[in-house]
Amino acid sequence: EDWRSMKKVQIFQYVVLKWTLALLIGLATGTVGFFNNLAVENIAGFKFVLTNNLMLEHRYLLAFVAYASCNLVLAAAAAALCAYVAPAAAGSGIPEVKAYLNGIDAHSILAPSTLFVKIFGSILGVSAGFVVGKEGPMVHTGACIANLLGQGGSRKYHLTCRWLRYFKSDRDRRDLITCGAAAGVAGAFRAPVGGVLFALEEAASWWRSALLWRTFFTTAVVAVVLRGFIGYCRSGKCGLFGKGGLIMFDVSSGVTTYNSTDLVAVIFLGVIGGVLGSLYNFFVDRIVRTYSIVNEKGAPFKILLAVTISLLTSCCSYGIPWFGSCTPCPSNIQEQCPAIGQSGNFKNFQCPPGHYNDLASLFLNTNDNAIRNLFSSGTNNEFYISTLFIFFASVYCLGLVTYGIAIPSGLFIPVILAGASYGRIVGTLLGSFTELNAGLFAVLGAASFLGGTMRMTVSVCIILLELTNNLLMLPLVMLVLLISKTVADCFNKGVYDQIVKLKGLPYLEAHAEPYMRHMVAGDVVSGPLITFSGVEKVGNIIHALKMTGHNGFPVVDEPPFTYAPELVGLVLRSHLLVLLKGKKFTRERESTRLSEVLQRFGAFDFAKAGSGKGVKLEDLDILEEEMELYVDLHPIANKSPYTVVETMSLAKAAVLFRELGLRHLLVVPKTPGRPPIVGILTRHDFMAEHVLGLFPHLMPHKKA
Amino acid sequence: EDWRSMKKVQIFQYVVLKWTLALLIGLATGTVGFFNNLAVENIAGFKFVLTNNLMLEHRYLLAFVAYASCNLVLAAAAAALCAYVAPAAAGSGIPEVKAYLNGIDAHSILAPSTLFVKIFGSILGVSAGFVVGKEGPMVHTGACIANLLGQGGSRKYHLTCRWLRYFKSDRDRRDLITCGAAAGVAGAFRAPVGGVLFALEEAASWWRSALLWRTFFTTAVVAVVLRGFIGYCRSGKCGLFGKGGLIMFDVSSGVTTYNSTDLVAVIFLGVIGGVLGSLYNFFVDRIVRTYSIVNEKGAPFKILLAVTISLLTSCCSYGIPWFGSCTPCPSNIQEQCPAIGQSGNFKNFQCPPGHYNDLASLFLNTNDNAIRNLFSSGTNNEFYISTLFIFFASVYCLGLVTYGIAIPSGLFIPVILAGASYGRIVGTLLGSFTELNAGLFAVLGAASFLGGTMRMTVSVCIILLELTNNLLMLPLVMLVLLISKTVADCFNKGVYDQIVKLKGLPYLEAHAEPYMRHMVAGDVVSGPLITFSGVEKVGNIIHALKMTGHNGFPVVDEPPFTYAPELVGLVLRSHLLVLLKGKKFTRERESTRLSEVLQRFGAFDFAKAGSGKGVKLEDLDILEEEMELYVDLHPIANKSPYTVVETMSLAKAAVLFRELGLRHLLVVPKTPGRPPIVGILTRHDFMAEHVLGLFPHLMPHKKA
Repeated sequence: EDWRSMKKVQIFQYVVLKWTLALLIGLATGTVGFFNNLAVENIAGFKFVLTNNLMLEHRYLLAFVAYASCNLVLAAAAAALCAYVAPAAAGSGIPEVKAYLNGIDAHSILAPSTLFVKIFGSILGVSAGFVVGKEGPMVHTGACIANLLGQGGSRKYHLTCRWLRYFKSDRDRRDLITCGAAAGVAGAFRAPVGGVLFALEEAASWWRSALLWRTFFTTAVVAVVLRGFIGYCRSGKCGLFGKGGLIMFDVSSGVTTYNSTDLVAVIFLGVIGGVLGSLYNFFVDRIVRTYSIVNEKGAPFKILLAVTISLLTSCCSYGIPWFGSCTPCPSNIQEQCPAIGQSGNFKNFQCPPGHYNDLASLFLNTNDNAIRNLFSSGTNNEFYISTLFIFFASVYCLGLVTYGIAIPSGLFIPVILAGASYGRIVGTLLGSFTELNAGLFAVLGAASFLGGTMRMTVSVCIILLELTNNLLMLPLVMLVLLISKTVADCFNKGVYDQIVKLKGLPYLEAHAEPYMRHMVAGDVVSGPLITFSGVEKVGNIIHALKMTGHNGFPVVDEPPFTYAPELVGLVLRSHLLVLLKGKKFTRERESTRLSEVLQRFGAFDFAKAGSGKGVKLEDLDILEEEMELYVDLHPIANKSPYTVVETMSLAKAAVLFRELGLRHLLVVPKTPGRPPIVGILTRHDFMAEHVLGLFPHLMPHKKA
Repeated sequence: EDWRSMKKVQIFQYVVLKWTLALLIGLATGTVGFFNNLAVENIAGFKFVLTNNLMLEHRYLLAFVAYASCNLVLAAAAAALCAYVAPAAAGSGIPEVKAYLNGIDAHSILAPSTLFVKIFGSILGVSAGFVVGKEGPMVHTGACIANLLGQGGSRKYHLTCRWLRYFKSDRDRRDLITCGAAAGVAGAFRAPVGGVLFALEEAASWWRSALLWRTFFTTAVVAVVLRGFIGYCRSGKCGLFGKGGLIMFDVSSGVTTYNSTDLVAVIFLGVIGGVLGSLYNFFVDRIVRTYSIVNEKGAPFKILLAVTISLLTSCCSYGIPWFGSCTPCPSNIQEQCPAIGQSGNFKNFQCPPGHYNDLASLFLNTNDNAIRNLFSSGTNNEFYISTLFIFFASVYCLGLVTYGIAIPSGLFIPVILAGASYGRIVGTLLGSFTELNAGLFAVLGAASFLGGTMRMTVSVCIILLELTNNLLMLPLVMLVLLISKTVADCFNKGVYDQIVKLKGLPYLEAHAEPYMRHMVAGDVVSGPLITFSGVEKVGNIIHALKMTGHNGFPVVDEPPFTYAPELVGLVLRSHLLVLLKGKKFTRERESTRLSEVLQRFGAFDFAKAGSGKGVKLEDLDILEEEMELYVDLHPIANKSPYTVVETMSLAKAAVLFRELGLRHLLVVPKTPGRPPIVGILTRHDFMAEHVLGLFPHLMPHKKA
């Protein structure tokens, strides 16, 4: 149903509801985002305080045991949640959201249980000291919240709402989930504009300018909510929750005039970022494939894997700082040195008073604090080159082995950590040759590695600007992103695209593949075509629904009803099920009047049901004698389905399919005198695997 | 030709060229933007210095004469440029760019002469003291620059380039012009992100995420260029060019905590903005219609009108301050008071030393300075309420009567001026009840009026944030925009949409009209359909080209070539002309082999030519005896045109047409045994005027 055909009151309700939902999504995502931060800071803070206190008493082994067992318990809890409650919550979640917005209704990716595990699993996982971020999970969380609100709550838990019947179309759902994804980014990075651009650049497959505004409203609500909570926490009522504002890593104090050496360094950073980023993607692909073998063996193995990685991480973060030497605290800084407690830039570790261990400042810290330390300006000589090298290598490897275990794991933070450390290496090496400080180089390094792995550009740029509150860095960040993305694109695809492909989701690309230009639509139509007559026998319909998984069936009127066979339209499986459930059958092949159908069914009976909520084939109880009766399909057929002639270029058909966001595309014959329908194209028929399976000689050479 | 079918080297050339052009557009637009500012500040500055000096000598009448005649000469020059050189350069230019990006190739809107007049006319017009801005013209300028570069310069002036043959498709052109429009906004407001979002929200009709990145690159180049020039001017080498940075009106110093009174005030501002904005649009529409009667009488009348408005403006801006009283300078401010010279917040005017005239601070100033004064914080009591009321009324009326005269005139500045003044009124009235200062209220007022007239939201929000460098205002600005847009949308459409409609440009809306749901594609097909045979007589083609203005003709193969009449495809007028010019005719009805055609024509002969550059019908010299020969149309026919069945819902056909950006949509019959094509739908067939002309009873009730 198009809303433009509704009454004025209904339109008003619809518009109010749309904005109310956007508001609610913003409020909920903002609250979850804050709660997430609060929980992580308190749990991880408690862990570090415990470890530090034991170290101050020189009980180093006990400190390690305490540290490692905290991590172990948290990791095991996160993995158990993931493994037993919602396996779909593992990983970043951004690929799944991207696939959903492309039109793929994968099972359970936005279910309430996934939401629950995503929130708590992410808190536990990040607190457990894994090299993972909360950003990807926040995007997924935002999308889940949007889905839950859009469905009017879960029917399972009896939380439904009548008003939400207006939101039963694919488009409304997608719009809400786009808002949710943007809200997630806004909540994770406190970057409202970055969130909108992320949704626009990476998440959404279709975009309208009306959506821009709604998304922006949602992210602004998130920003307001976060600001309110943080303002409240400034007064110290939130336990170990650290300092923070709308800006996470404030480097605005850095001077940003730059000379030609800096430009060369930036270009160099871009190239490194591209190479390292594509390598990272390559390894992520391999490691996820390997892990999936382990993970498929069952839940206990998933937990075992997570626990193993947790132990490895604990060993690295507690063990490596022992190789560091103690440095006397610099005298000209405002920060506390050595830092005592859970955070701080200059960690004391095993050093005597007045000294700090720079390796511990990076390793024995939450990821957020490590990033803040790397980005910090005015501390040019804080870290030794060797420290940064060791940290870079560890984080690069740990980030790789951590992604793919059964916990909600974001990729942003590992990538930013690794990028910032090599950026800072370059900055420190350049030393006095450059006018930029080492913190700004760390930001540029993070940008280059983000560009190299995720291949997002504008959104990464804006997110970094909002994170660092330094508008004047814009040109350098853009340059580095442009180079790293270009370099990395020579080798492979972005990490999210790779994961989408790895999961076997039929993602429709924005453009048609080159080989499609030499094929026609008729070439790829496959499988036996099942058509129904305008008035069809109930038994035939039941049989077809049972035997195939098709979601759409063409309806053809045949003589004697028409002069020649004629295409009526397309009926959807879900509509057929509703119609059959209504049991308005006739004994003869005769057509039902529309008014009767309208009487029998409410306006929203045929609206798209929430996931797992529609009528199922098993729900029908058609009696044996009803099987021989007839039912008229005309009232429920979509009478103007989009069609292409069989000789239409496949590339053009693909563009049509993708641009209009179709689920079925009917292929009609070119010449008269044949059956009026040749076949149906669905999403799967445009996939490279399907097309190249039918025509192996078209295989692109690089794959041969 | 799709670039994916090109060779690797060609793809590389294409990609390099794309980015080079984006860079060049950025450089050129940035330079023009700076030059524009520089010229305006110097010309207007000279004018004000002259007037001020005469006033200091108490020669008030002479000062007026000098002031008014400066304005008069500048206005007459601007109008003369517009009237005689490029009439298309009059007005804002944003509606034209918007229409072009919607697929309308209106005559000469992006021609080099338009560019020239747009730049210099805008400088003259703004310097002449009109209540107009340089923002709209800058967008148009950016688009013209993009067009000029994309065509490889103008053939007229022998500035062409072979490489640019790759840029002959509609899509490449549109992409470039989108970049140009974004660069224009970025150059006018120094708002790179705002420019991208403006292009996305207001200008472009189709958007791809690849374009996002390219646009952003362009605007960043603009920002860098502007920054470089401004840095150069800081040293005082640019005459009367004032202070400035990347941020134009810096209100970041203002505190932004707010209480509930402020929220009520903001909601109130939103409602006022909506009402005043829709009224503004209504009057703009009426006044432009009235003026067009005058303007159609010829160039001298255009100049006369401009001169009249110039005199009126001079009288207002010099005369009204006389009603103002002199106020002693406040002691606790950092700014110079009274200000001497061309700019400054506290204008001396006729007052004794140590006093200022607040009316003169607003009236006898450039528009940019007046805005800066209104936005200024820490000057809460500078302006009397009466002053602000008088200024608001004058600017509102002057803005209305100025738009529509034959000069390049942007709407942003008048709208910001009027909005800022009523915002400041509200702020001043609230006084101590509010925690926000009057300058921030002026920003909110400007936002509300922008939302009410232009109906842009995200881009206005970001532009204002970038202009004022105050990220923490975001929630309030969003709220006020949301309310004012919603209120104004109840009354009429946005001012740019209105102007597009007023100019009679066939703009395709993003969604189908409600009445289209009850019609089928066959209903609106009109006019006699002209089809060609697969091998057609030259004379018939020439006749059809002469007699009709159609740009596309269906080609139908008929017996004896095929068993039944069969649709081959669609040929374009421009391709027919190239083919006929090639003169590869045959004596018999026989088909030519493709290889022969490829031999005869280069790969780029059929590429879309620049505006006014293609082969014209008059260029052909077909001899009388050649008229009887045949030519094979198969090689040039588009063999898979998009088609719809005649019973397809018109709404769905409209969506297809719009989403895919088509120019022709073939309508095929539903039942066999009829001619294989029913008609062609073009852009004009989807226009409300056409459809409602055919079916007057469908007229929506509100218009009846």
